[in-house]
Amino acid sequence: MTAYIFEFIGTGMLILIGNGVVANLVLKDTKGSDSGWVGISLAWGIAVFIGVFISADVSGAHLNPAVTVGLATAGKFSWSLVPGYIVAQILGAMMGNFLVWLTYKKQYDATEDESALLATFSTAPAIRSYGWNLVSEAIGTFALVFGVFYIAGGAMANEPISLGSLDALPVALLVMGIGFGLGGPTGYAINPARDLGPRIMHAILPLRNKGKSDWSYAWVPVLGPILGALLAALVFIVLN
Amino acid sequence: MTAYIFEFIGTGMLILIGNGVVANLVLKDTKGSDSGWVGISLAWGIAVFIGVFISADVSGAHLNPAVTVGLATAGKFSWSLVPGYIVAQILGAMMGNFLVWLTYKKQYDATEDESALLATFSTAPAIRSYGWNLVSEAIGTFALVFGVFYIAGGAMANEPISLGSLDALPVALLVMGIGFGLGGPTGYAINPARDLGPRIMHAILPLRNKGKSDWSYAWVPVLGPILGALLAALVFIVLN
Amino acid sequence: MTAYIFEFIGTGMLILIGNGVVANLVLKDTKGSDSGWVGISLAWGIAVFIGVFISADVSGAHLNPAVTVGLATAGKFSWSLVPGYIVAQILGAMMGNFLVWLTYKKQYDATEDESALLATFSTAPAIRSYGWNLVSEAIGTFALVFGVFYIAGGAMANEPISLGSLDALPVALLVMGIGFGLGGPTGYAINPARDLGPRIMHAILPLRNKGKSDWSYAWVPVLGPILGALLAALVFIVLN
Amino acid sequence: MTAYIFEFIGTGMLILIGNGVVANLVLKDTKGSDSGWVGISLAWGIAVFIGVFISADVSGAHLNPAVTVGLATAGKFSWSLVPGYIVAQILGAMMGNFLVWLTYKKQYDATEDESALLATFSTAPAIRSYGWNLVSEAIGTFALVFGVFYIAGGAMANEPISLGSLDALPVALLVMGIGFGLGGPTGYAINPARDLGPRIMHAILPLRNKGKSDWSYAWVPVLGPILGALLAALVFIVLN
Repeated sequence: MTAYIFEFIGTGMLILIGNGVVANLVLKDTKGSDSGWVGISLAWGIAVFIGVFISADVSGAHLNPAVTVGLATAGKFSWSLVPGYIVAQILGAMMGNFLVWLTYKKQYDATEDESALLATFSTAPAIRSYGWNLVSEAIGTFALVFGVFYIAGGAMANEPISLGSLDALPVALLVMGIGFGLGGPTGYAINPARDLGPRIMHAILPLRNKGKSDWSYAWVPVLGPILGALLAALVFIVLN
Repeated sequence: MTAYIFEFIGTGMLILIGNGVVANLVLKDTKGSDSGWVGISLAWGIAVFIGVFISADVSGAHLNPAVTVGLATAGKFSWSLVPGYIVAQILGAMMGNFLVWLTYKKQYDATEDESALLATFSTAPAIRSYGWNLVSEAIGTFALVFGVFYIAGGAMANEPISLGSLDALPVALLVMGIGFGLGGPTGYAINPARDLGPRIMHAILPLRNKGKSDWSYAWVPVLGPILGALLAALVFIVLN
Repeated sequence: MTAYIFEFIGTGMLILIGNGVVANLVLKDTKGSDSGWVGISLAWGIAVFIGVFISADVSGAHLNPAVTVGLATAGKFSWSLVPGYIVAQILGAMMGNFLVWLTYKKQYDATEDESALLATFSTAPAIRSYGWNLVSEAIGTFALVFGVFYIAGGAMANEPISLGSLDALPVALLVMGIGFGLGGPTGYAINPARDLGPRIMHAILPLRNKGKSDWSYAWVPVLGPILGALLAALVFIVLN
Repeated sequence: MTAYIFEFIGTGMLILIGNGVVANLVLKDTKGSDSGWVGISLAWGIAVFIGVFISADVSGAHLNPAVTVGLATAGKFSWSLVPGYIVAQILGAMMGNFLVWLTYKKQYDATEDESALLATFSTAPAIRSYGWNLVSEAIGTFALVFGVFYIAGGAMANEPISLGSLDALPVALLVMGIGFGLGGPTGYAINPARDLGPRIMHAILPLRNKGKSDWSYAWVPVLGPILGALLAALVFIVLN
């Protein structure tokens, strides 16, 4: 149960900082509207650092169903814990985004651009093309999960893998790199909970100028990351 | 007494670098006027790194009344030291800002924008709304103090918590993340000493084009951080 | 054989992230078109971090024929492994760039600027001048290989040198520094595999608006780095 | 003698990367003309990292006469080595800037702005005022040398202080912070060798559009840093 709680907390911190930077960038009347893609990439990496650092020693800091499924597929995490982890991650992401909304309440009220409002919750592609967007998300998540295998030091057969607090920096740099390098086409959800949880919050919260929650795209940043994670697990198994 | 001195020094270094970057950004005729929010967020995090690194092994590197009160509330720091720590932090912040003024003396003289001048001392909200500004400051400080609990490794019952020099980097990254993600609405004081000490200096110093010190807002970046710290202590107690 | 595989993987990750950030910057309709040179320099350094971290403990993480040749010249790496390493690096770079193309497929289709398209594969000089471009590449690579000698801790006579995962951060910072400081004239290939492998991919891939692969320049980012590496090895030998 | 050589090498690497980023920013026809103050601050910090990392274990990585004089004043470094260290630092800075010139040769030829050309060698104030420029340089260097005392862990009486390779990151962050926060008025030489050596090179090198070397300002970034270092040593002595 404690592991679930810390997955909830860690994912909450991840989204609080991560979608906070998006809010800072795209909402009206903030101080960080010039943060740009450098700010986005650095801050999401730092958000991962914080979430991993706080939760690693208790839950192993997945904070991402793709990581959870990838590790379980490779035999490095118990399948029995997978459902609880994923639920905790999605709820944590929702809580994190709720706090972003509270933090930027006046800015949310002042913003009229519906797509900017949605962007502070969920990702959207630069060019909409479900198939290729899926590929982009899968490759980005492949890089993430494949990297996590080696950062967490899981080359030993039959041993579970989990991130420790000392792994927070390498994973954070990995996510910064994915943001800079692979985030251009879809905004790199690379994490089903990061996209789905906030999208549910977007549907729930009483935003003044709320538009559609773009549910037609919602499956892409869920399925893409899972496919990428499965591929990473497969390659990892072949290599070990 | 040594602990108080190093809280003074550490907070002084924090403000010297931190408000130095604000001065570099907003004053006239500086070389760093294009630093932007990326510069602000990175530099305040680095400022925390420097302040913590220098003072950690002597004073535990609070550098912030919210951290001091949060730790004391959680039973991780002696209440008897709290007043001295807070006084040292405020005095240190004043000294740090005094050195910023000396460093940028010619730029201060050249700048006519009164709100830019005040910004090199204290924070101001992007949209003034005392209630919501308080919420923003409380959430930002919650993230800071809650993070500090785990970075300082205080899960053990009945043991004091203090930051060591090895904690300087995680705390710095945490503050970078808060700046990028949560600094948009209020400029993230998240530290009563960081805002109040410099505001007093603003009132004292003979600035050529000095405007009001905006005392009507001064209570927000004091009370907000304290509320956030109390909340963080509460959650920490419940979790442990 | 495992070492060759991890040189392939590490170089692939390097190019995936590294040329990914170029694609994000220069292709049409991406989210990171404002990343700028700060983004380029940070992301290539992070790309090195990831590639080195993943491959270091198996292959020593050269990821670069210039490093391989430099170490071998200094007697710190077996010449018998050099050909296999170089082939693996070139193939890895090709694979990495193939994945960049898949990730940004829609953006590649939307982009009409032929030199932008080529830039997501190979480097080009800001001012074309083969001799001086060669000098720029040689000096940049000298800094890299000379730094690697000391980061990898190779002052002991007659011992092989290889990077470990703990060396990933120093090497990454070194490459960030080279990008910021020495990348201006030629885009800092500083790695024959990083330039040649992707150039071959550029010639092969069915890009919609593909221009020339600029083979007349291709020898510069191959020979320049090798010259720089030989010079670094020479200075290292003299100093030890 | 080896210590002198590594002071030469380390300072050379420092200036190669550091003034390289200035060249990338201000010369004509480079790829990094948008690096801005964020790039300058990050890259000079990284330059320090590289220089310190390479030289620390041999020479203690002063790379700066202000550091050398500060440590000697505090009784933490032998005065008998001071002249040799300073000469090596100045020569190293000259060599580093010579390599910057070679790297950017075509860009130097293409640039007509005399002050931009000089900026790739030596610092110049944003507002010329010898007295206040001296204060700015002294405060910046005070922060540097005072920080170095604590980073190098020199609280023990009667023991020498020198930086080790593990101190490279904290010192680099310190210099990044000084750049962001205190570099605005004068461009933060904070190092007599960093300014004087390159100014000599500027006078010597056959630049196509060379202007004056601004010798009337040259004493400020020499005397200011020395004063700051003496002050830091004084405070350190009082505190210990």
